[in-house]
Amino acid sequence: MLAGLAGAQGMGPGDVLVMAHKPVSKAEGRVVALADVRPGPAARELAERTGEDPALCELILAESRRIVRQRRGTVIAETHHGFVCANAGIDASNVDPGAVVLLPVDPDASARRIQARLAAALGGRVGVVVTDTHGRAFRRGLVNVAIGVAGFAGLVDLRGGRDRGGRLLVATDEALADELAAASGVLMPKAGGTPAVAVSGVATLPSPGGVGVLLRDPAHDLFRDPGDPASPR
Amino acid sequence: MLAGLAGAQGMGPGDVLVMAHKPVSKAEGRVVALADVRPGPAARELAERTGEDPALCELILAESRRIVRQRRGTVIAETHHGFVCANAGIDASNVDPGAVVLLPVDPDASARRIQARLAAALGGRVGVVVTDTHGRAFRRGLVNVAIGVAGFAGLVDLRGGRDRGGRLLVATDEALADELAAASGVLMPKAGGTPAVAVSGVATLPSPGGVGVLLRDPAHDLFRDPGDPASPR
Repeated sequence: MLAGLAGAQGMGPGDVLVMAHKPVSKAEGRVVALADVRPGPAARELAERTGEDPALCELILAESRRIVRQRRGTVIAETHHGFVCANAGIDASNVDPGAVVLLPVDPDASARRIQARLAAALGGRVGVVVTDTHGRAFRRGLVNVAIGVAGFAGLVDLRGGRDRGGRLLVATDEALADELAAASGVLMPKAGGTPAVAVSGVATLPSPGGVGVLLRDPAHDLFRDPGDPASPR
Repeated sequence: MLAGLAGAQGMGPGDVLVMAHKPVSKAEGRVVALADVRPGPAARELAERTGEDPALCELILAESRRIVRQRRGTVIAETHHGFVCANAGIDASNVDPGAVVLLPVDPDASARRIQARLAAALGGRVGVVVTDTHGRAFRRGLVNVAIGVAGFAGLVDLRGGRDRGGRLLVATDEALADELAAASGVLMPKAGGTPAVAVSGVATLPSPGGVGVLLRDPAHDLFRDPGDPASPR
């Protein structure tokens, strides 16, 4: 199903290209030298509380709507896009020392641009997923998730379908773009060097795409906000 | 990389079998008729608060260490295994009406039994992942995650490795078993009928396995417990 890929070699219509955001971010100029950043008072306060670099904290605050959790050594932010992740997705690996890579300003737009070029080159419909590597609540270890989607429906609504016994399926939205992102992680070593994988043979629903369908409305999220005491057993 | 699989046909040494827990649970007798369950006072109280079936609530309480969140229509529990998921993993799809399927008592042991049989049949090392389908904090849509792992290391510790620029990688535990579980979801439709997929060509680390490495210590989990006020921006 997956094959290592240099560019779009070997891709055909119907395939999905899953690519790490870092080369996209770099191509879009989203690399910042920490020495060029002047931390403001809020960033210095966040740095004080967490032990993180004040310049990094300034960038985290600039990239996020709000800080969701903060601890010594840990800042979980909700980015302007709506992603809840460590350091607002800012990353220092596979980049020059003293520099960091920010997420694309609009990863869906990045995905659409790549998708349009690929579709033109291949003469048919293709899908594109741009990924980032996230930690998870409750579970250890990193997995890739979708941060930009183009050309297919990233969330597949199975409600109204029936199981093999004829029972109505409920609450069965399948996070297809996230499944593909996670699968790509098996073939995209964190040490870098494999920026994209092509996925063949997966049934996708034609759609403009967009990652928004994969983001839970904060009002319906049971874990983003504190202050929700569970009753004791 | 992935191919639909009936039994272990086509598998070879080094492959990983990723299978849904439901056939495993059924084979282990973990099917309960709700009519046979007598809800106690705690279950009736939980049913009252959430609108769920009192018998289902009795089973949720029996299967869990504690309730993590509860809302009208939603119970998130921490199972005795340590999984944080809806309804303690109890599921009513693809089973007779009025019956529900519980998670295996020890999904690692289930994975080890399947792994031993496969390894003997194939004459070489194989890996096994038993999966369940979970929702996520912050994101919409379901993905498969590992609930049992045998024959390989489900979490790959990359700390101490270096990126392509020679920088030390930090905080890069890769949740390999969860990546494989998520990938399998692309090929295991929720309507049922495809209980397992075989994965070839993935480098795995020989290990007895065990899903425990993928479970975050509750003491280090920022989202399980309420009462963690983030400072305002």
